[in-house]
Order: sequence, then structure tokens, then C-alpha cells
Amino acid sequence: MAEQTPEERIARFEELSVLEAEFEDAEIQLIRKSDEIHAPLYKKRADLIAKIPHFWALVFEQSPPEVEQYILPSDSKVFAESLETLEVSRFEIDDPKGSPRSFSIKFGFGENEYFEDRVLEKKFWFRKSLDGWQGLVSEPVKIAWKEGNDLSGGLTDAAYKLWQAKQAKAGGDAKKATQLPEYKELAQKIEQSEEPQPSFFAWFGFVSSYKWVSAEESEQANQKEAEALEKKKKGEKVEEEEEDEEDDGVDSQETEVFPVGDQLATIIAEDMWPSAVKYYIRAHEDEGDDDDLSELEVEDLDDESDDEEVDIAELVGKSKKRAAEDSPASKKKQKKA
Amino acid sequence: MAEQTPEERIARFEELSVLEAEFEDAEIQLIRKSDEIHAPLYKKRADLIAKIPHFWALVFEQSPPEVEQYILPSDSKVFAESLETLEVSRFEIDDPKGSPRSFSIKFGFGENEYFEDRVLEKKFWFRKSLDGWQGLVSEPVKIAWKEGNDLSGGLTDAAYKLWQAKQAKAGGDAKKATQLPEYKELAQKIEQSEEPQPSFFAWFGFVSSYKWVSAEESEQANQKEAEALEKKKKGEKVEEEEEDEEDDGVDSQETEVFPVGDQLATIIAEDMWPSAVKYYIRAHEDEGDDDDLSELEVEDLDDESDDEEVDIAELVGKSKKRAAEDSPASKKKQKKA
Repeated sequence: MAEQTPEERIARFEELSVLEAEFEDAEIQLIRKSDEIHAPLYKKRADLIAKIPHFWALVFEQSPPEVEQYILPSDSKVFAESLETLEVSRFEIDDPKGSPRSFSIKFGFGENEYFEDRVLEKKFWFRKSLDGWQGLVSEPVKIAWKEGNDLSGGLTDAAYKLWQAKQAKAGGDAKKATQLPEYKELAQKIEQSEEPQPSFFAWFGFVSSYKWVSAEESEQANQKEAEALEKKKKGEKVEEEEEDEEDDGVDSQETEVFPVGDQLATIIAEDMWPSAVKYYIRAHEDEGDDDDLSELEVEDLDDESDDEEVDIAELVGKSKKRAAEDSPASKKKQKKA
Repeated sequence: MAEQTPEERIARFEELSVLEAEFEDAEIQLIRKSDEIHAPLYKKRADLIAKIPHFWALVFEQSPPEVEQYILPSDSKVFAESLETLEVSRFEIDDPKGSPRSFSIKFGFGENEYFEDRVLEKKFWFRKSLDGWQGLVSEPVKIAWKEGNDLSGGLTDAAYKLWQAKQAKAGGDAKKATQLPEYKELAQKIEQSEEPQPSFFAWFGFVSSYKWVSAEESEQANQKEAEALEKKKKGEKVEEEEEDEEDDGVDSQETEVFPVGDQLATIIAEDMWPSAVKYYIRAHEDEGDDDDLSELEVEDLDDESDDEEVDIAELVGKSKKRAAEDSPASKKKQKKA
């Protein structure tokens, strides 16, 4: 193949960007199709699961290590005692200004000793920033912790307070927000934390792994992108802006209570949620045969102390058998696209 | 939620298995839809790529670490010098006895000093075994290495020879196959290998990460599964067979030249192939700006020796900038489902 001239190369490159946009459209089309195909199945599954105690607690227990590593023993205890429902929905799928990549994860809890809430819902918006980033952003969710039982050690409260203060006093100005007392309080809280790992519940305070991006900014970025694409389609040259031009010098990760919150959310929504039955069944396959099903008994949970190593399977009366994962039975599970 | 009786639990469990089968059907439906939506885009992409020298070599260079770690410097050299086309196709998508999960990866090469072949095609069949495993199996591909230039150090030849001998002399009997001289030769070759890692080209000799499963066995397994499903739908009890009943005691991994061959194939087919343009564009984004495109010049490849550290980007005149991967530009890439 002959080498190209610089002009040829740039032309090819623009053509590829146009093609890339078509691939993205195809992807969006597939997400919609998937949502449509799965909707009746998820409905059916929810009805079935409603009859199975501890279903979601067991799924969290058998979830991929990318999820399980963020569940502390005290979090497991909450799940085993009171997690009743889990629901993932693509809430912007019919919104022309939104994205089918946005999703919400809704947890339904029974009465418990930790918090007053019956529902904790965390929304993730898929947005683009004007400086070229795209990804999931979220607003901190307030958890009504019961006195002395805040598993996040004050992180969700502090993240929520900063969020409120930013709206009230800083507008969209990230630089101005760094002057708020709530900013300093949260940044200090994170910096001085001695816990090797926060509770899973701190994830409800997550904002962004890059920086917060508003709906307005995302709409502008989408518009800019669409205009650039039109130019490229016509073969016109598009001036790329320097990406750090608008950098405000603020490190938003200084006040991020759960830096990988978007990744964790993505694995829950795109792996754990669609494959929940598989994970649940696997918990039983590892046991060897059907007779073990009758061993599923919930132990007296009140005997457990918060500080002990707690394991959901144990809490609901099934022993954990990680070692069995390399058995032919577990090979049934294949990675999917 | 009230605890269940053992009978209730088993009934729920059967209902879940039936639901699981419906989820699998939905997945198959989505693979078909994806194939349909993407077909015209892949055609368009192939036409565009045909005008871009070293496109696939650069994509391999920028590929995810799960692929890149298997590319030795000498493999990179072959790609940079002569890899012209790459094509993934789901060749059983319209075959009622086959699976839309099966795929083939076809490499097109120009004249080169290593092998005579212009096309190397590796097929992966998605099959189920009677003992409950399911996954991808493949037949070893013969590579017509040029004298003294076998990058696999004899592995592809030995894997292919054993394969031929098995067909001719052992039928489907895995135990009998272990008595073949070709079996011992390959097992010994693998055991005595001192290379920390085989060439990427040894992957063409891959058979299975579990064991070889024939089309006939897979059809039987599918039929058994369908019958069990029918019973479950009617609420009849299904006797699960002991999974190791048919174990022939043969460790097929003793003669597997590339144990993770199925995983590598899956990442190429389900990530690298659909996202190729993204990886190619990223190679350029890391450079900073468009002007760098003109720096794309191929150096005199003959000056390179086989034993040196070789890097595809360098070979085609682009320096590798791994360190730039954490820049905001590279954050544009989001993980997809």
C-alpha cells in the first residue's frame, strides 16, 4: 500500500470521525433495542424475585469482584437484613435532550437500624463537557442515617451539604465553590480519613470521576460536536480547540467521596443487573446439588456484631464457596459483550 | 418477607432457570440485531481503512492491554510490515444448528518473510458439552512458515499435526488420543518451552480452554437442555446428572498451545474489532494536535532486528505515548456494555 500525503491523511482522519459518529448512533440504537427486548423480562423477573427472600443480598455476594470488593462486612449486613428490591432504569431513553446511556439504580429497603429511607435512588447522567470529556455524573443522595449508625462516617452528609451550598451560593462556578466552608470540611474529611476503604453507602455521595457537568453544558457540547460533524461531512476543516483552555484549575477529586463511583455503577447496571439470575443460580451450583437448597435458612442476625467479618451467604445460611469457582460448573458462565 | 419451604424454593429455582433461558434468547436476538445494524458500517469502514496504511497494526498497538500483552515485539514487526486487513464475522448467524455467538477472525497479509499465507482465518464455535460446559472451541490453523522463520517455535505445526492425527486415528476418543506420538510430542514441547510467553501466532493453534467439543456433542447437549427446559416449564422435576460422570480423566490443557486463546479471541472480536476506529483515533489524539499526522512516516523496516524491542507505532513512525493515557483526551473512551 502506498504511503499517503499529509493532506490525504487528514482527509481520511475526518472521514473516520464521521464514521465514528455513525457507530455511536448504532450503539444508541442497540441500547434502545435492548431496553425494549428486556423490559418484559425484567418485569417477570421482579415478580419472581419478590417471592425469594434475600435474592439481591445473595446476588451482591456472588457479584463480580469489581463490585464485591466495595462491599464492607457492615454493608453486607445491611443488604442481608433489609435489601428487598433493586431496579435499574434508563430514565432518559425517551428524552431527546437526554441520553439512553444515562441510568438510575434504585434500592428498596425494609425497616432497619441504619437509616430511615425505604428507597435510595442514585441517578447517573451521561454527559459531555465543553473541554471534551464524556462520562457519567451524579448528584449526592442524602441518606437519613439513624443516630450513631452512619456507615459512611459522615461522608454522604458532607457531600450532600457541599452540593446544597454549591447550588445556593456558588452557581456553576467551581472555583468559587472551593471557598465554601462545606468544601473545606469535605476535602479535609476525605484527606484525614483513616479507613482503608469507605462503606459502599458512601457511593451515594458520588459526583464525578472528572468533574460535575451540568445539563446545559452537555447540551452545548453536543451542539458543538454536531456542528463540527456537519462540517466534516462537507469536507470542511474543523479547528480543534485546545482542551485545557477552559481549565479552572480546580481538582474536583479533592471532594469526591467515591472516586470510582461511575465504574462501580456501570458494572452494577451493565453486568450485575442483567445477569442477576445467573449470579443467584451460581450461588446454588457451587453447592453441588439440589438438596442443598433446603439448607437455606436465615440465622439469627442479631447475634452478629458489626465488627466481625460478615459474609452475606453466611448471613442467609449459605456458606461461601469461592474455591469452587474454577469447577466446570462455574465455567458455564461466559463473558458477554 | 417470609422464609420459604424447601418445596417453594425448588419451585422458584426452576422458574428462574426458565427465565434464564428467556434472557439467553433475548441476548441472541440482540446479537442478530447488532450484526444487522453494524453490517453496512463495517463495509464502509473496510473501504475507508483500505486507503490507510498500517491501520490494523496501529490498532493492535493501541489495543487494550488484554490484547497487547500477547503481542511480542517480533509479532508487532509482522503486523507493521504486512498486516493489511482484519475481518470478524458471525458465520453461524443464519445456521439454525449453529450459534450467533460463534465467530471467525480473518487476517489478510501482504508478502512477507515469515509465512507463505496471504490469509489466516481462525474460527471459533460456541458449543455446549454434555457435561455442562459451554464456550468457544477452535481448530488449529496451519501456518506455512518460511524456513527458519517460524515465530511460534514449532507450536502451530505440532498442534496441527496432533489435530490431524486425532481425526485419522483416534476418532472422538480423547483417551485414545493421549497414546498418539503427536500427543506426547506436543505435550513435551509445551512443558519444556523456556519462553516466558509464546508468539501471538501460536494462538492460531488454540483448541479449547476446557476441552474440544464436536458439533454433534453440542447438538445433543442443546437438545437435552431444551427437553429439560420443557419439563421445567410444565413444572415437572428434572433430574440433574452428575457432571463428572463422563469425565475421561484426560487433561486437554496438556496439549493446549495457547490456554487463554478463547478470551483473547473474544476481546479481539467484541472490543478491538467494533472499536477499531476509536483506538486508531486515540493513537492520534495522544499526539496533541492534527499537525502530527504529517509525521506519520514509515521507517526503513529492514534495519530492525528480530531481537530488539519493537513497537508498532515506532515502526510506522509514530512514537508510543502510553503516559498520555490518563489525559482528559483519553477519558473520552467509555467502557461499554
